Amino acid sequence: MAETTTTTAIPELTQYLERLLAAGNYDAVKQLLEPEQPADAAEAIGNLPTLQQAIAFRLLPKNEAIEVYEYLDATVQQSLLERLRSGEVLELVEQMSPDDRVRLFDELPAKVVRNLLQQLSPEERRVTAQLLGYETETAGRLMTTEFIDLKEFHSASQALTIVRRRALTTETIYSLYVTDAARQLTGILSLRDLVVADPEDLIGAVMTREVVRVHTDTDQEEVARLIKRYDFLALPVVDREDRLVGIVTVDDVIDVIEQEATRDLYAAGAVQAGDEDDYFQSNLFEVAKRRVLWLLVLLITNTGTSAVIASQQGVLQRVVQLAAFIPLLIGTGGNVGAQSSTVVIRGLSTNRLQALGPWRTVGREALAGVLLGLLLAAVVVPWSWQLSGEPLVAVAAGVSMLCISILAATAGASLPLLFDQLGLDPALMSAPFITTVVDVAGVFIYLQTAAWLLSHLGANG
Amino acid sequence: MAETTTTTAIPELTQYLERLLAAGNYDAVKQLLEPEQPADAAEAIGNLPTLQQAIAFRLLPKNEAIEVYEYLDATVQQSLLERLRSGEVLELVEQMSPDDRVRLFDELPAKVVRNLLQQLSPEERRVTAQLLGYETETAGRLMTTEFIDLKEFHSASQALTIVRRRALTTETIYSLYVTDAARQLTGILSLRDLVVADPEDLIGAVMTREVVRVHTDTDQEEVARLIKRYDFLALPVVDREDRLVGIVTVDDVIDVIEQEATRDLYAAGAVQAGDEDDYFQSNLFEVAKRRVLWLLVLLITNTGTSAVIASQQGVLQRVVQLAAFIPLLIGTGGNVGAQSSTVVIRGLSTNRLQALGPWRTVGREALAGVLLGLLLAAVVVPWSWQLSGEPLVAVAAGVSMLCISILAATAGASLPLLFDQLGLDPALMSAPFITTVVDVAGVFIYLQTAAWLLSHLGANG
Repeated sequence: MAETTTTTAIPELTQYLERLLAAGNYDAVKQLLEPEQPADAAEAIGNLPTLQQAIAFRLLPKNEAIEVYEYLDATVQQSLLERLRSGEVLELVEQMSPDDRVRLFDELPAKVVRNLLQQLSPEERRVTAQLLGYETETAGRLMTTEFIDLKEFHSASQALTIVRRRALTTETIYSLYVTDAARQLTGILSLRDLVVADPEDLIGAVMTREVVRVHTDTDQEEVARLIKRYDFLALPVVDREDRLVGIVTVDDVIDVIEQEATRDLYAAGAVQAGDEDDYFQSNLFEVAKRRVLWLLVLLITNTGTSAVIASQQGVLQRVVQLAAFIPLLIGTGGNVGAQSSTVVIRGLSTNRLQALGPWRTVGREALAGVLLGLLLAAVVVPWSWQLSGEPLVAVAAGVSMLCISILAATAGASLPLLFDQLGLDPALMSAPFITTVVDVAGVFIYLQTAAWLLSHLGANG
Repeated sequence: MAETTTTTAIPELTQYLERLLAAGNYDAVKQLLEPEQPADAAEAIGNLPTLQQAIAFRLLPKNEAIEVYEYLDATVQQSLLERLRSGEVLELVEQMSPDDRVRLFDELPAKVVRNLLQQLSPEERRVTAQLLGYETETAGRLMTTEFIDLKEFHSASQALTIVRRRALTTETIYSLYVTDAARQLTGILSLRDLVVADPEDLIGAVMTREVVRVHTDTDQEEVARLIKRYDFLALPVVDREDRLVGIVTVDDVIDVIEQEATRDLYAAGAVQAGDEDDYFQSNLFEVAKRRVLWLLVLLITNTGTSAVIASQQGVLQRVVQLAAFIPLLIGTGGNVGAQSSTVVIRGLSTNRLQALGPWRTVGREALAGVLLGLLLAAVVVPWSWQLSGEPLVAVAAGVSMLCISILAATAGASLPLLFDQLGLDPALMSAPFITTVVDVAGVFIYLQTAAWLLSHLGANG
């Protein structure tokens, strides 16, 4: 897989750096790091022993150091801060993009953050404090305050001069924003529009007035959805007075999309997702903590199965062969329910469900439950008959397989939709929970069916 | 959620369009559609009755029509092709970006594709046939052949003139590529670099020579990983001779990331993912088909539980209370296994596992299994003792809870890793399969433990 692409082999790079640093050949370290992509340099430096990290980092050219720093893991960023001289630290933090700085501050102890904030220049301090004031996972937290704003009365050539002047200190120059005297957003244009415009054209005539914008408190999932839908490179963020305060760029949105996918997947696996996708960096007790809550919830729900079986012990005592098919029936029913909840939860988060609407979605799943239940019953009946030698067991297994399958598909589709309607996270109703609910209901259906058959047919083989 | 953003309410827009089209007020339709984002116009048109779709589409200004068409669903694209005059069809298909055209052709009947291909201009035909020749889900299939290539001997001002001239017909002008006489890629620069460069500078002096590139047959997941890692807006694609043949842009990559996340989630829910994320558009039998295979595999695996229980019927007959805890134990064990397989599969696909390596990953999970098993046993023992009144049942349940938990965590972590090492898709070892394997092993462990206790303690309450 890796050999079709021209990218750096990080383990090798790390190894060479380590060797050269140990030998004190700092020129060679510079020569090795210089042509690397910042992301690769950051990963290699992050892999070095802590003591060497600071040395290697200091060898980077100043303008590249900032970029590399922004790509480092939060833990490495933090340990570097402790090892660099306070002058170096300040310069670094001062020059980071505001959004990356805020992400770093989120990880640092409050005392360190207060200390650093005090030392920043007034402008950077203001911006940082502002971003820190927004709720996490909102557009305000995700945005950068570095963008290029133009005025409608600028000519295209004036605008191009402004872009040139600010190109090196601005995160993106490809989306340009037009504001009025009150700093309210009145239009946008792309650098492409500007480049093809006649130099004499006024910005007001070239720009687009219909601007898709979000508010500082818009959820980051919604921001991602919009950028994805419209294929934007950036999206403007306005405050309550519609003043332009920042922009969110597509690279941050890719991280959001991946983070949300991890969260959905973890929910589907009954793992509580942390704020950061740092499962493999946390210690064992942290790992257990993130798993035990869900396990206990599911365990307690599942005690319902024991209670149901214990209350029906008479039936089992009369036909002990019934027990052999309990795991099979509830396990298979659980899988049907897991399928339904999976497609519905994913459909909700990718917005593909909108066209169908909740009622038709549940109806379709219920019908799928009937169809799948009939197919599964067709396998279960002969198998259970053959293994138990009891027609009664086979009939009970077949009937309950069908009922369980319908119930599982319906519950799997409707519970996430219900949670969504109530404004709760539909992922709480993901596969593990649905499966457990189906376990309890399934055992009940199976043993009740068997009891009914026993009492009405009076048969015992 | 929607009210914090300034976007169009599609259902309302659709309704108005329908009304105006029915009244024959085509000017009003134009006025309504004109300021909309192409993605929104496409969705509204897609929601119209089929007959109206073609009318509304014809009312779009020509240059916007292409963009809107590229955003339409494949089914709507296809039905439009059937309703437009062949001259209109040809013009439309001729002007689409090559990558979008190929995606459309993938959906059309082979006969229609052959017919259209023949009518395309020689240049567009060549490009399209070339893209259709690459495997699906590779960089070659994903790329567009529209990019701006410069030569090292161009001056910055010459280059800017080239960019200006080609800006309107090229998908992105923000990443520029430098090739030599043999069309081999020698460097890249961004429009930002070009804009800040001195007009006299030669491209050869301004460009970056270290270029991350992929081959036409690179898997689309790898393409997405690289663009994500380096925060690129586009990535160059070269052929076997290192000649530049196309570029993949970030908007296509976002779709890939989402598609892969859907696939992983579907695997976690035992649903087979189709080529397109079209679960909610397919009919009921298609839905059942995509689910029944996994259900049958799991059902057949799960028949192991019946076989195990049937073979241990003697134990159950002596202590029928044992049956009450079978679903609880295997269900909880299944959840532990689902957690482990979920984090490992996600770690493999986001590359977060690399630092830890396979052995330490499995070791950590096994230890987590011990820890979680002890916690769960501490709940299960008193509950089973109280419900059954049998100390033997409580001991058997507690011991097997611990064993099942360790086994589940270990299997959940190691089976996906093993599949990955063997070059198979680790998602095949996702939660549903692990859960089913744990069911079979769990029942065996539980009944064996109980049998051993019975024979060694000889107790029965």
